[in-house]
Amino acid sequence: MENFNFYSPTFFAFGKDRELETGSLVKRFGGSKVLIHYGGGSVVRSGLLDRVKASLEKEELPYIVLGGVRPNPRSGLVYEGIELCRREKVDFILAVGGGSVIDSSKAIAAGTIYDGDFWDFYSGKRIEEALPVGTILTIAAAGSEGSPDSVITLEDGMFKRGASGDAIRPKFSILNPALTQTLPPYQTAAGITDILAHLHERYLTNTKEVEVTDRLIEGLMLTMIHEGPRVIADPDCYEARANIMWAGMMAHNNSCGVGRSQDWNSHNIEHELSAMYDCAHGAGLAVTMPAVFRYVMDHDVMRFAQLAVRVWGCQMDFAHPEKTAAAGIDALQWFLVSLGMPANFEELGAKEEDIPELVRVLCRGDGRDGTISGFVTLDEEDCTEIYKMMV
Amino acid sequence: MENFNFYSPTFFAFGKDRELETGSLVKRFGGSKVLIHYGGGSVVRSGLLDRVKASLEKEELPYIVLGGVRPNPRSGLVYEGIELCRREKVDFILAVGGGSVIDSSKAIAAGTIYDGDFWDFYSGKRIEEALPVGTILTIAAAGSEGSPDSVITLEDGMFKRGASGDAIRPKFSILNPALTQTLPPYQTAAGITDILAHLHERYLTNTKEVEVTDRLIEGLMLTMIHEGPRVIADPDCYEARANIMWAGMMAHNNSCGVGRSQDWNSHNIEHELSAMYDCAHGAGLAVTMPAVFRYVMDHDVMRFAQLAVRVWGCQMDFAHPEKTAAAGIDALQWFLVSLGMPANFEELGAKEEDIPELVRVLCRGDGRDGTISGFVTLDEEDCTEIYKMMV
Repeated sequence: MENFNFYSPTFFAFGKDRELETGSLVKRFGGSKVLIHYGGGSVVRSGLLDRVKASLEKEELPYIVLGGVRPNPRSGLVYEGIELCRREKVDFILAVGGGSVIDSSKAIAAGTIYDGDFWDFYSGKRIEEALPVGTILTIAAAGSEGSPDSVITLEDGMFKRGASGDAIRPKFSILNPALTQTLPPYQTAAGITDILAHLHERYLTNTKEVEVTDRLIEGLMLTMIHEGPRVIADPDCYEARANIMWAGMMAHNNSCGVGRSQDWNSHNIEHELSAMYDCAHGAGLAVTMPAVFRYVMDHDVMRFAQLAVRVWGCQMDFAHPEKTAAAGIDALQWFLVSLGMPANFEELGAKEEDIPELVRVLCRGDGRDGTISGFVTLDEEDCTEIYKMMV
Repeated sequence: MENFNFYSPTFFAFGKDRELETGSLVKRFGGSKVLIHYGGGSVVRSGLLDRVKASLEKEELPYIVLGGVRPNPRSGLVYEGIELCRREKVDFILAVGGGSVIDSSKAIAAGTIYDGDFWDFYSGKRIEEALPVGTILTIAAAGSEGSPDSVITLEDGMFKRGASGDAIRPKFSILNPALTQTLPPYQTAAGITDILAHLHERYLTNTKEVEVTDRLIEGLMLTMIHEGPRVIADPDCYEARANIMWAGMMAHNNSCGVGRSQDWNSHNIEHELSAMYDCAHGAGLAVTMPAVFRYVMDHDVMRFAQLAVRVWGCQMDFAHPEKTAAAGIDALQWFLVSLGMPANFEELGAKEEDIPELVRVLCRGDGRDGTISGFVTLDEEDCTEIYKMMV
């Protein structure tokens, strides 16, 4: 196991009606003037935004609001939020929504107190300081509620990049599974796929003998396999929603990914798809993951075989481990399709003729050197092949 | 799933040589005068204490020392530590050792700034304030390095009781698996047993459909089953030590136990054994757990059958699930014996004729009402039967 630090000081308030505690949590974590940041109309229509405002008012906390975050959140709104927070002397960012809203909130939190361009953080500079962020989560997916990460799409060039730093870990996150019961099935399935992707990105490691994190990841994958079909069949099932919600946090706060190298090439390859076509990140991952895994499988057949046996219940073919490994990847893809996720470019709305441009932005955009590194280092030719496998 | 809060703000510095960072971590978390609290001679002989002192000196941090913590740490030394810290105006407690040293440190940390008798906290009062505590762990076992809990033996009456509160969660914990390589096999095995016990206490729940925490617990159990025999056979195996050390923390910081009722009757029943006979807590648990589980198995046969199938690899007997359930408990006991743990009163050094006194202190001591509650509520008759099953 490699040396590591692990520090996850987010306070999680989990369960029914916990959003009613928003005001007291903002106070506890030092907020005195709040930006409520959110996305579209659903948090308005559901009454959630009103409940959150009422909770802040009860604690006599002034607030301003900034809605309009889109899936694959854009740099433009971040710049707007930073200006607003500086002008209004906001000292606490409250995200009400999913991963896009939280990531946009984190970017605003870091950018407001930074002298330069916030995009510096998305070009490799580590985030050392930020305003405190709290979240009220409305979809189990991105894991941003417990992570030090944020992903933003730069509108000038349309590429997605990530930033990281303990300073943008939320101070508190309110996780009420009931808030996710009204999600459309496609969004629920995309969230499940994103969670499974976070687990796979950690599972594909070149570090040897990390049994504890292997087993924890497998346990979370088995949870998703159990609860995914249940929640698609019965969207109101609170217990399934609750298990998925905690799994989504645990999948990405990195307690299950410490001490090992990780992959993240599926995320990198997918980011260009959702940046170009504005598809749901999870849907993009459903198409990307099987292709990437089939392409890199030979790098460590036994790792994929272990995954197939322990998680997908495949019988080990001791004479032909590569068959077991491949069967596990097939099982993943069929599982995702059974949830309603796309299986190829066409279902995703992507186009074969765009592959050269996708590869260019992926491997050369924003100063990259022609390769992306992870479980296997991939060059432009590799990435071209992988995108072609998705057609 | 039940509503819950989860807050685990400990900074974990994991890996080789991390104890060399002690001084800078104490400074980072606000210490300016340190009590180094430790146990017997092993941290002196190994040179660890000298390395820790040198690290504090490098940061120009003054310190005093208090050694002498015994396994099953006693109230007497806690009172002594509290007096010392008040007199010397200590503002940071640094535990160098295992669970006993950490628990004693937590008690001193809470007691030093409390006007009343620190034992109030071990009689039901929640700990709201304490001096900051840091730990340098030398055995994977108690999980105290990441937990809000402490267990102390009151010398007046010789019973063990626990206290809890987020204020005594360590600010940082240094986990260097190499420090555990010199442990005698019996202590290593007792630590493994304690970790497995923490997992079982959380697994035995009356909350339905908590798949995510079931799966996480099972993953950690499977890790212990894989790594336990390996580390007993090869005490120098760093990778096995590392997997066990992270599993031990994860088993008890409660990320795998949230949202569900828990048991803790095996711990309660064992505490009287280690209080009366001063045996290793883990050794006591090796004798206690199988007896308790056999006694309460009928309360939820399918839960024990699930454990047997998923963790111990038993074949499910669909016509007789109780046989599968029982086979899982047998497998646990054989596993513990194979590590070198005792299986009965005699091997533990306990005496059948003491059972009435054990039951009296367990069920009536320190204001208890004649029962202990958990997965199943047990009265004096039940506890008598359970102790008899261990003979």
